Amino acid sequence: MYKILRQIEKPNDIKTIAPEDYRRLASEIRSCLVNSVSRTGGHLASNLGVVELTMALHICLDFPEDKLIWDVGHQSYVHKILTGRWNNMDTIRNYGGLSGFPSIEESETDAFDTGHASTSVSAALGYAHAARLQGKKNKVFAVIGDGSITGGMFYEAINNAASLKSNMVIILNDNNMSISKNVGGMSKYLTKLRTASQYTTLKDNIEYALKKMPYIGENVIEKIRRSKSSLKHLVIPGMFFEDMGLTYIGPVDGHNVNQLVKTFENAVNLDKPVIIHVKTKKGRGYRLAEENPCFFHGVEPFDVRSGELKKKRTEGSLSYTEVFGKKLCEMAAVNDRIVAVCAAMPQGTGLIPFSEKYNKRFFDVGIAEEHAVTFAAGLAADEMIPVVSIYSTFLQRAYDQIIHDVCKTRRHVVFAVDRSGITGNDGETHQGIYDVSFLCGIPGMTILSPKNHIEFEDMLEFAVNQFDGPVAVRYPRGDACMDMTGYRQEIAYGRAEILYGDTEEKRQVLLLAAGSMVATAVQAADRLKADGVQATVVNMRFIKPLDTALLNKLIPSHDIIVTLEENVISGGISEQVASYMQWNGFSGKKCIPVCLPDTYVKHGNPDVLKEKYGLTSEAVAEKILRETV
Amino acid sequence: MYKILRQIEKPNDIKTIAPEDYRRLASEIRSCLVNSVSRTGGHLASNLGVVELTMALHICLDFPEDKLIWDVGHQSYVHKILTGRWNNMDTIRNYGGLSGFPSIEESETDAFDTGHASTSVSAALGYAHAARLQGKKNKVFAVIGDGSITGGMFYEAINNAASLKSNMVIILNDNNMSISKNVGGMSKYLTKLRTASQYTTLKDNIEYALKKMPYIGENVIEKIRRSKSSLKHLVIPGMFFEDMGLTYIGPVDGHNVNQLVKTFENAVNLDKPVIIHVKTKKGRGYRLAEENPCFFHGVEPFDVRSGELKKKRTEGSLSYTEVFGKKLCEMAAVNDRIVAVCAAMPQGTGLIPFSEKYNKRFFDVGIAEEHAVTFAAGLAADEMIPVVSIYSTFLQRAYDQIIHDVCKTRRHVVFAVDRSGITGNDGETHQGIYDVSFLCGIPGMTILSPKNHIEFEDMLEFAVNQFDGPVAVRYPRGDACMDMTGYRQEIAYGRAEILYGDTEEKRQVLLLAAGSMVATAVQAADRLKADGVQATVVNMRFIKPLDTALLNKLIPSHDIIVTLEENVISGGISEQVASYMQWNGFSGKKCIPVCLPDTYVKHGNPDVLKEKYGLTSEAVAEKILRETV
Repeated sequence: MYKILRQIEKPNDIKTIAPEDYRRLASEIRSCLVNSVSRTGGHLASNLGVVELTMALHICLDFPEDKLIWDVGHQSYVHKILTGRWNNMDTIRNYGGLSGFPSIEESETDAFDTGHASTSVSAALGYAHAARLQGKKNKVFAVIGDGSITGGMFYEAINNAASLKSNMVIILNDNNMSISKNVGGMSKYLTKLRTASQYTTLKDNIEYALKKMPYIGENVIEKIRRSKSSLKHLVIPGMFFEDMGLTYIGPVDGHNVNQLVKTFENAVNLDKPVIIHVKTKKGRGYRLAEENPCFFHGVEPFDVRSGELKKKRTEGSLSYTEVFGKKLCEMAAVNDRIVAVCAAMPQGTGLIPFSEKYNKRFFDVGIAEEHAVTFAAGLAADEMIPVVSIYSTFLQRAYDQIIHDVCKTRRHVVFAVDRSGITGNDGETHQGIYDVSFLCGIPGMTILSPKNHIEFEDMLEFAVNQFDGPVAVRYPRGDACMDMTGYRQEIAYGRAEILYGDTEEKRQVLLLAAGSMVATAVQAADRLKADGVQATVVNMRFIKPLDTALLNKLIPSHDIIVTLEENVISGGISEQVASYMQWNGFSGKKCIPVCLPDTYVKHGNPDVLKEKYGLTSEAVAEKILRETV
Repeated sequence: MYKILRQIEKPNDIKTIAPEDYRRLASEIRSCLVNSVSRTGGHLASNLGVVELTMALHICLDFPEDKLIWDVGHQSYVHKILTGRWNNMDTIRNYGGLSGFPSIEESETDAFDTGHASTSVSAALGYAHAARLQGKKNKVFAVIGDGSITGGMFYEAINNAASLKSNMVIILNDNNMSISKNVGGMSKYLTKLRTASQYTTLKDNIEYALKKMPYIGENVIEKIRRSKSSLKHLVIPGMFFEDMGLTYIGPVDGHNVNQLVKTFENAVNLDKPVIIHVKTKKGRGYRLAEENPCFFHGVEPFDVRSGELKKKRTEGSLSYTEVFGKKLCEMAAVNDRIVAVCAAMPQGTGLIPFSEKYNKRFFDVGIAEEHAVTFAAGLAADEMIPVVSIYSTFLQRAYDQIIHDVCKTRRHVVFAVDRSGITGNDGETHQGIYDVSFLCGIPGMTILSPKNHIEFEDMLEFAVNQFDGPVAVRYPRGDACMDMTGYRQEIAYGRAEILYGDTEEKRQVLLLAAGSMVATAVQAADRLKADGVQATVVNMRFIKPLDTALLNKLIPSHDIIVTLEENVISGGISEQVASYMQWNGFSGKKCIPVCLPDTYVKHGNPDVLKEKYGLTSEAVAEKILRETV
């Protein structure tokens, strides 16, 4: 097994492989990918698509001197394999194992840590200028997908690249897909490029160009047609990139190692920024992934033969994402002002059903969170109710737009903040543990978080149909909590909900919990009870504004106040409650924050991570018991 | 005076003006602009450049049904004048007066509040889709400058605009300037467009196109030359926008009202997204501003005849911005790893001297804060020390990049956060009152703030030459504080500085102040002393990490703890100190936050605003005295 691959023990070892073994090597890499990802889960389809591309890059580049930057980074598995990490692939995305993304901490051949889209060209340009200033001759390559080039940072970077007088190579890895189908004007443009290969005749190219121009008569096209033979290699569509100051080469077959190597070598010799347009096929070589690249983009452990997930969903369970998608459709059926906006993640955000039923009211804007939010503000300015569904970690991109375009004028934009809190195996770049902090600091923002699936629906109903103004509902990854269904009070602005205890009774411990931590608080209270300690449990519901009226009533009748949240400590709920108490003279109370420390949270199973950071009901109960002794 | 202009009392009144009076009207508008801005200060050159453009827009559009969105918004004065606000122009940017930016609160003809760059097309697209969904036929126009189209949001928006099947008009207001000289590949491209007008012959255009393509022989160009007569109106450069799915029209003379009106009418009839390239001259009609558009971009009150500022600088005074520019040059002279990065603001950030002395180490990346930060991370990854100078309010744009590309891997990027705290007359969109909150929440970030110019230099020295890792120095707008120069202890990581009092002495009041508020704290302490109340004053120096060792010593020996900062309350210093006290059992202390409330801060003189929010030494002393009675 892995006859060729096993010869690759460290970076640059691919250079010792004979070219006639490339095909075999590619096939072994694909086996390695499919086998390991089927066991660990992870990103499969995009990695299968870049096997030959990555091989060609490793043949051309010398690590670690040369710099190779993977945009988004989930397609860096082949790179990991070719730098000798292939026998650790079974640990990928698990706590303590390989990261699912490039990580300079893991290997110095991972030149730049990525995870969010569209950063690679900016980083590469930094590397290229640094090399130039130091007189170094190392090569700098960025690999960016056609999905990622819908992000504004790519454009900002290529606009700036015109200032670079030395070489840098951007590989446009074009598989005609974002995670889902790619969208927008640029995507249509690339489709034209793909079909216009370097062998296209003059006729196609010039006609393509001329037909787009006003005032061109057929006779001109006719005249130019006659000169076609002398213009064989005209590739007019690359003009878009050429206009921005890049040299465009392509399109090139992304599954032909030798052709890729030759192209890269040529590109490096041009002493300027170059973009090479490479055509690849997502899922290549594994039939099931080729047929369903979206499913196999990021996948849980699966059976290689059938493609079916190993872990079956619990009967009747629904993820928060699914609850969101379902509820939004229901509301949209009776309120035609509701529109949905997402940033290249119709699947991930649960909006596929909405996009099918209410196609005209559905907007996938591409990987463009900044635009998504301001676009939504524009929709809201003219009587629509936009529901913007973006993962917590990607919403960070639109922080300024939320301040500037939504909250300043109190636009009724509803933010469905999916994947908030610890998200798990994607690791540091994907944890949704900052949104409470950054959203709370914005004047005029309202933030809710549900304890279970029913409350989530009620909160969406409140946010969309009853509220007017900027509002965020933050909810975690994975299955919705189906417990505590007996507790269903109406959502009232700024009001929390008492689950255990009441405002009259004096108890030792007060647990103030938000969202996913409500269930933890309830379990912790049950544990405490077994130890003879009575706790009041409050479901905060509103993270902003705090229900200070309730706090004023409850705090005096409790000795230990515990706040529970899945967010970093700075600017989170814990800090807000503690400072509220300090400013308002609630003295002599013990105050315990249960939250994430001031640190990046690595990849791993969410349960493992919660244990590590003391966010389990056991840990919470123990911590409290230590104070009650 | 204002014979024609005085006929314009409300929106749409321009339609009653006879075309033969347009020239006179334009001249009166320019007088109104120069006169009022010379008294109030404000944005002049950009407004002088759009007089005819705005007139033409007001002739074509019906307000408030039609929507007109001004990107950045500082060029909306003429729009304000033409909607009947001209006789209030003397109040512009003053507290309680007109805003210097579009404000829907001020007039419903201001369709969308702006202030930061590159948002207009996103908002316009929202409006256009909202109109379409509701079957409305109103027109939607966005006006965006050639500087603003270097921002990624513009690209994200036009990429998305391809999905719009109805009309929306983007006016590209091209004056070949950002605030300073425009930069980047797009800027070069526009220069080509400007010279290739619709009267350009085939020869120029086709040659332009063909020369950029590989493998084109002279003979082909020769053949095409012969057919030149039939291709008079070929405008090949618009292809860039056409490729993105927009219809390109232009370039058009931006100072010819009739031609503009005709062009707009034609554009509206095309039932799709259109971009009209309009050439204007910044500063037009006021010679001094034409000659020095950068100085007259945003200007303090000046003498109309001489162009000189009315208020002379105090002898020997230096702004924080100037101190930064000077110190950076000094450090760069001895450390060639230092590079400077700014986002289209070499002047505003004080980097002109650096850019002249160290041209190769200076990077103006355009209005592209996201790219700026990740680009800096790339530079830092290969041994450079990038100093990124961005105004606090614009750094909000790069929040995700700071988390993801700088702090996660602890890159040594130095953020020079200019214009932090209350900045004044630009108002809500420009106050730098969120940076403490959003930066503190990022793991691994270090934040400093200086009390005076000497400490600022010491902090820059520390951040650049002694520290390793992400670090921000936040400093306010305007003249550097020249006081307290006797207090100059060495900067030590995480250590605060005691100005009044010491760790041994018990005093009633402890003032913990950061940056600009240190002087206020000292003055407040002096006032308190006059009333017989002794206060210890601490210059925090480090906003993150807090000097908890010092807090542990000082808090027990004081009764009232006061935190002073120019930042919103949520996530700020006050909240951090108060929660620290609560968690660590410092009970029975009175704790007073002096900071900004959870609200947007409007435009006005900074002194007026500080008074309003209780940030003056008088207000602080009074507040404390009330507690000591």
